[in-house]
Amino acid sequence: MAMSPYRQLETRFSKLGAVEEALAMLGWDSSTMMPVGGAEARAEQMSVLQVVCHELVTDAALGDLIVAAESDDTLDSWQRANLAEMRRRWLHETAVPADLVSRLSKASLDCEMIWREARPAGDFAGVLPSLQTLLDLTKEAGAARAEKLGVPLYDALLDAYEPGGSAAEIDRLFAELAAFLPDLVEAAIDRQASRPKPVPLDGPFPIAAQQTLGIRLMETLGFDFAHGRLDVSAHPFSGGTPDDVRITTRYAEEDFTRALMGVLHETGHALYERGLPARWRRQPVGYARGMSIHESQSLLIEMQACRSREFMEYLAPLAARTFAEYGVDTSGPGWTSDNLWRLSTRVERSLIRVDADEATYPAHVVLRYRLERALIEGRLSLAELPGAWNEGMTSLIGVTPPDDRLGCLQDIHWFGGSWGYFPTYTLGAMTAAQLFAAANRADPGIRPGLAQGNFAPLLGWLRPNVHERASSVSARTLVTEATGSPLDVGVFERHLTTRYLES
Amino acid sequence: MAMSPYRQLETRFSKLGAVEEALAMLGWDSSTMMPVGGAEARAEQMSVLQVVCHELVTDAALGDLIVAAESDDTLDSWQRANLAEMRRRWLHETAVPADLVSRLSKASLDCEMIWREARPAGDFAGVLPSLQTLLDLTKEAGAARAEKLGVPLYDALLDAYEPGGSAAEIDRLFAELAAFLPDLVEAAIDRQASRPKPVPLDGPFPIAAQQTLGIRLMETLGFDFAHGRLDVSAHPFSGGTPDDVRITTRYAEEDFTRALMGVLHETGHALYERGLPARWRRQPVGYARGMSIHESQSLLIEMQACRSREFMEYLAPLAARTFAEYGVDTSGPGWTSDNLWRLSTRVERSLIRVDADEATYPAHVVLRYRLERALIEGRLSLAELPGAWNEGMTSLIGVTPPDDRLGCLQDIHWFGGSWGYFPTYTLGAMTAAQLFAAANRADPGIRPGLAQGNFAPLLGWLRPNVHERASSVSARTLVTEATGSPLDVGVFERHLTTRYLES
Repeated sequence: MAMSPYRQLETRFSKLGAVEEALAMLGWDSSTMMPVGGAEARAEQMSVLQVVCHELVTDAALGDLIVAAESDDTLDSWQRANLAEMRRRWLHETAVPADLVSRLSKASLDCEMIWREARPAGDFAGVLPSLQTLLDLTKEAGAARAEKLGVPLYDALLDAYEPGGSAAEIDRLFAELAAFLPDLVEAAIDRQASRPKPVPLDGPFPIAAQQTLGIRLMETLGFDFAHGRLDVSAHPFSGGTPDDVRITTRYAEEDFTRALMGVLHETGHALYERGLPARWRRQPVGYARGMSIHESQSLLIEMQACRSREFMEYLAPLAARTFAEYGVDTSGPGWTSDNLWRLSTRVERSLIRVDADEATYPAHVVLRYRLERALIEGRLSLAELPGAWNEGMTSLIGVTPPDDRLGCLQDIHWFGGSWGYFPTYTLGAMTAAQLFAAANRADPGIRPGLAQGNFAPLLGWLRPNVHERASSVSARTLVTEATGSPLDVGVFERHLTTRYLES
Repeated sequence: MAMSPYRQLETRFSKLGAVEEALAMLGWDSSTMMPVGGAEARAEQMSVLQVVCHELVTDAALGDLIVAAESDDTLDSWQRANLAEMRRRWLHETAVPADLVSRLSKASLDCEMIWREARPAGDFAGVLPSLQTLLDLTKEAGAARAEKLGVPLYDALLDAYEPGGSAAEIDRLFAELAAFLPDLVEAAIDRQASRPKPVPLDGPFPIAAQQTLGIRLMETLGFDFAHGRLDVSAHPFSGGTPDDVRITTRYAEEDFTRALMGVLHETGHALYERGLPARWRRQPVGYARGMSIHESQSLLIEMQACRSREFMEYLAPLAARTFAEYGVDTSGPGWTSDNLWRLSTRVERSLIRVDADEATYPAHVVLRYRLERALIEGRLSLAELPGAWNEGMTSLIGVTPPDDRLGCLQDIHWFGGSWGYFPTYTLGAMTAAQLFAAANRADPGIRPGLAQGNFAPLLGWLRPNVHERASSVSARTLVTEATGSPLDVGVFERHLTTRYLES
């Protein structure tokens, strides 16, 4: 008997998934292990595997198989969801002509390379022409996708990172956010200034000690080292595959908290990947739901759970003990859980997004979202970008960049071709707050557990409510079913208020 | 203008080469970095990429393109050689029906898994049925290849490792070898026994110190760390790609010489890979010529150059200094170059091939070659293998295995489906001796250079005479042109005689 169209699709997408896993491992290797001289050959390997993936999805038979499978009334709900994800993937890949894909890919590489020189020099004019080319091609590809998907231009770009996301909803959410955030930040900074400063912790903190502490905490959180690793890279990330999750951090001897919070953040991503349903491995429905849910899992672990007062009760003695094992003097007054908590929840107006704290971070994102939409929709020209950036920083955060290096040149996203990505950071932060609140309502043992280093109750809630759902429902449905309501800025506001104005 | 058939072939094989490079990196990762839980997904990734490779080579259009390109009289000699290698690859891949390929691949995996249990238990009977299945399928696939290649059955298997190799020639070479080797080994052992024993070096030797010494020597030999790495794996190997060569070793604290000689051996492989012509990267003609030439490069570095008296003059003080940096007492009488040389050139009759010394090693190989040919050609049954093994060990080496664990179960090759591989080890050893002798004739500065840690003269000869030739000529032509004559057992005999009976 011949395989049903649906089964044939599963076979094809399973093959695609295996090649994408291979790509993920090669990408991890490039950032962690590869000697510099391997870069050119690696680019060739990855580019060929990307072509193999593209050919698998754009194969002439695929569209017909999808149509045929869609009239198969024996499929269960996960299979239907899988099929819908197959269609989405197929639409994205076939919407843009091969020639445009390759021009876009080349323009991204070119622009990113020029940006790597232009950023340290603060030379926006130098990168402007190639950024203009890249933006034009991005709009062209976006328009092709928008037509196929039947959504507005920006939404078509957003959809690659946040399936089903819409600018209309983000506008509403970010408007609410922008309405309270500047006042909240001001109040938090005032309150902070009225109190004694936290005691700084004196290093140096040997890297081996930081690594040991990181590994101990990863194990505490439920990271399974039989299915993953912790390594070092210039830019921390979570990579690999669900069965072999590879996270990275970077260490600085003078401050251990940054690398540590990075490890906890990436562990949140890792737990999500590892918790995806094994039954649907390498099938479209079996992947993470999108960037906002992914970021919600890292921020739930880092911001909600691990920067809590409860967790600091567990962390402070463990960190002191671990560093003492490596000969660091941890007898000083800074090693209390209260001090560690205050060090970990400082609020400060700053210029650089990746260095921003939890309270000011969303303002950085709102700015970028507004600017990229305006650029995409032609309401702002690239020549006007630096000025608009600086004005936005002044009004949203209250600081003005002295130059473009600390301004509109700081992030790789636009220069590397990632347009429509930025809002997912803050959608993730809001989602994290809402999921964490719901988890604590459902299981009052979660918060007290953090103080004991017991993450099992939290993970026990996240597994069925988030991880195991994979892409079987939309992000909106996932949040609604897990928390009782769609994304609600009020929950995030309450979280920030409690932590920064009342704790 | 349409691309010429030859150009189209280059494009296709370049794609194939990139996927094979990706496979090489995934293979390296499996042995060095991958957590145990990643094995199943990794097998899936690699199996899919192998299918992609197979599909690229067996594509219906490929045979016609090869025929068309063969009548293109504008091709230069390298292009012609490239085309010949394409045809060879295509013949190998299309000779065996897809169904048989997949049964063979499954039988190899099954048998190897059973062998992993059977070896420690010394249970040959337990693995016999699956080995019989594997042998039968190997013969079936070999027969299909033999027909397409127009060569005898064993030669068709050999061709996968030693392109153009023939059993008739190996028979002749190994007969000459077997004629003098037992007497030479006996004389070497007698001579050794008549002298004072070398002084053992007392450890422990910290792994970090061994690693530092290994890296220093790799740099001395010309290994470029911008294009490669040294890591740890259970079974040392040289992997990766010519632009990113990844070698491994394994350390034991009580003895540094074994890991060190392993590093030097793999560095020989690595220098060959790195020296392949960049102009022909990812083209069939651009790869290493075959296993005997590859092994000649590792053995030339390890056995010919690095176990020489000259090199020991360089190594002894460097090793002593390096270990002293790590707190090891190196003031004892064992740290002279003479003692280190005598420790590195001990001859002993032993049961295990991978532990054998340079003088007895060829006998292990001759035994395996004769047995595998007899099995393949039906002159020996698997049930008779253990007995035949033990008889052969007794007559060729003078020791008799007490059980099959130390006998015919010791090597993975047959149980993993690699039939026709064994002779390449000793062809490599002979080739190494002959190349090294020719190099020293051509440049009398090579040997004195070794005593100074100056490998530039040696590498300067190997690059044009071996590495840069890649697969542009046969192994036979390469050896003949580099040394003035085809493979000559006499040169190898002279080397062994000089080192073990006269030095």
